[in-house]
Amino acid sequence: MFIESWRGSIVESRHRVHVAVVDGEGRLVARAGDPDLVTFWRSAAKPFQALPLVADGAADRFGLTSEELAIACASHSSEPRHVELVRAFLKKVGCGERDLLCGPHPPLSEAVAKDYQTRGVRLTAVYSNCSGKHTGMLALARHHGWPTEFYTRPEHPVQQRCLEEVSRWTDVPVQRLGTATDGCGVVCYALPLRNMALAYARLSSPAPNQESAGFGVRSAGSNGEGREASDLPLKPRTPHPALRIVQSMLRHPDLIAGSGRPCTDLMRAHPGRVLAKVGAEGVYSALIVPEGLGITLKVEDGNSAAAALAIAAVLADLGVKPQPESLTVRDHINSRGDKVGELRVNGGLEKQKDGGWGMGDGYA
Amino acid sequence: MFIESWRGSIVESRHRVHVAVVDGEGRLVARAGDPDLVTFWRSAAKPFQALPLVADGAADRFGLTSEELAIACASHSSEPRHVELVRAFLKKVGCGERDLLCGPHPPLSEAVAKDYQTRGVRLTAVYSNCSGKHTGMLALARHHGWPTEFYTRPEHPVQQRCLEEVSRWTDVPVQRLGTATDGCGVVCYALPLRNMALAYARLSSPAPNQESAGFGVRSAGSNGEGREASDLPLKPRTPHPALRIVQSMLRHPDLIAGSGRPCTDLMRAHPGRVLAKVGAEGVYSALIVPEGLGITLKVEDGNSAAAALAIAAVLADLGVKPQPESLTVRDHINSRGDKVGELRVNGGLEKQKDGGWGMGDGYA
Repeated sequence: MFIESWRGSIVESRHRVHVAVVDGEGRLVARAGDPDLVTFWRSAAKPFQALPLVADGAADRFGLTSEELAIACASHSSEPRHVELVRAFLKKVGCGERDLLCGPHPPLSEAVAKDYQTRGVRLTAVYSNCSGKHTGMLALARHHGWPTEFYTRPEHPVQQRCLEEVSRWTDVPVQRLGTATDGCGVVCYALPLRNMALAYARLSSPAPNQESAGFGVRSAGSNGEGREASDLPLKPRTPHPALRIVQSMLRHPDLIAGSGRPCTDLMRAHPGRVLAKVGAEGVYSALIVPEGLGITLKVEDGNSAAAALAIAAVLADLGVKPQPESLTVRDHINSRGDKVGELRVNGGLEKQKDGGWGMGDGYA
Repeated sequence: MFIESWRGSIVESRHRVHVAVVDGEGRLVARAGDPDLVTFWRSAAKPFQALPLVADGAADRFGLTSEELAIACASHSSEPRHVELVRAFLKKVGCGERDLLCGPHPPLSEAVAKDYQTRGVRLTAVYSNCSGKHTGMLALARHHGWPTEFYTRPEHPVQQRCLEEVSRWTDVPVQRLGTATDGCGVVCYALPLRNMALAYARLSSPAPNQESAGFGVRSAGSNGEGREASDLPLKPRTPHPALRIVQSMLRHPDLIAGSGRPCTDLMRAHPGRVLAKVGAEGVYSALIVPEGLGITLKVEDGNSAAAALAIAAVLADLGVKPQPESLTVRDHINSRGDKVGELRVNGGLEKQKDGGWGMGDGYA
């Protein structure tokens, strides 16, 4: 599968896309390119970094709203309402903006960036697209009585807890998860696309009352390499932690990204049916809720515009259509304001006829 | 050849690079990936769009300086001296800023862009990185008595003249040159990398006193498909048009791009030995002057940072070293100001042991 950049009637550049579509049992349902490609999950891992908030009881203890849980999973556009929501969330968990260790950056939304620039808004950590995730991490630290200082460091219990959660949902043992520093300073995870897709598939069907870390999810220890499920501090409640996260995200597409951004547009186009979460460097994960299909794709070269077109095309290929027009073709406009070309999708998914392969192939 | 984007100790994304290295006779000396890849030359074609200025006598008629010829070949950074130079050039040829049909855009240099933003400088057409090229086109129109209006249109004699010049140097018949609209509104050219490299190789050794379009360059008509050389309005002078363009570029590396930009750094690191010219969407062309080797590369996905590292690596591979440190590895800095990874080169050129192939393979 390629996303091609056309200029006039000629392809000028192209982006290779690798895709894994997996069901809740870990079967590869469809693919493009290499579904076992190992790369960083980046911000598409946010729902799993937010899950401990619910699972460990922090969400109940602090009375977190669905808005607050949604923003904890977001790569938000730094819109005024996003920033205000994070400020209130910080206050609720007894923290302040100074506790946030994410660095500032221009808003991901060009319109918001331009507006703040015009108005001379000083961008601080709370404006980071990751400020909701960071606030969730501070909340988790407060809840467990862990220090709030240095919560971004790999050895901090917050990061260790998130690593375990990611391991459990992806079936990749903690020791095999690659780690590095994300754009905002916390730990990010490298693993095969197929395992990322599995984690999203599982979000739609956790067995609600299961007490262990399993809830329809094989624990990281199931292949003998990870920790045993009983080591993990999960304290499931009703509704199930994963369902509460999924419902919070589905309820607030406008908080997951922002006005005009692909995640928001994709989720708004198919309310309650699609959960979509972008990651930096050309990563996209999604869940088709009724079918319980998890998707993760990576544009090999990290191009974000190509990734947005690719996820819309993959969803359409799986029957979720129509997709927003802005995500089927994207015009190239030159400095004179003329259309000179466009970004287009070439190719699609290969469906796996035999019902797919086991997850044993996942970490080739 | 790949340019890999590392995060910590893991490759996160990668960029495929296609390279053709060709000598003045059209022999493929070295390659990586597909040397026959067809893509747009973009701004790396500028020296050939400036050549008619000298060849047709406009440079002599208007008394153009080496600075003015260099800026006509430039993708400049919109530094104050670049903009002032273009303003004077416009005046010299009896035109004004209003005649420029390139649209404005933020300066290619981040430092310059930031400075202008802070100072509230209003960006107009003269600030376009292509304003020197456009001024050269206006000069050519004035010289020939062609209208200066609509000089960007494909049917305008200025664009027709540039197309012929590109055809002649690349050995691609006019009819086989792909065309589209460039970022600044003029015609841009699609052709195989190998033919772009050939044109650069030929820049170093035009036979100075040859009267035809040949000057050591086979004319576009040599394979029976293009126009005959005698159709072309070339009026060579002494010094040879190509030498005057090459010398102007070599003399003013700071005008070809700008402070801290790769073309300028590469040319400054090897004064008089290397001519380097970037194009948009991951294209780079270069000439190693003493050896008469022409190089063109394309990063398949269009990534510019990868293209800069790739051209430095290719030049080093061909014996032109050391390259500027900023172009051997490029750090990724996150929003907290920490280094979290880097862009690195993986792989290199395959040398063609048998002296290479003929240009007949050039347009596969």
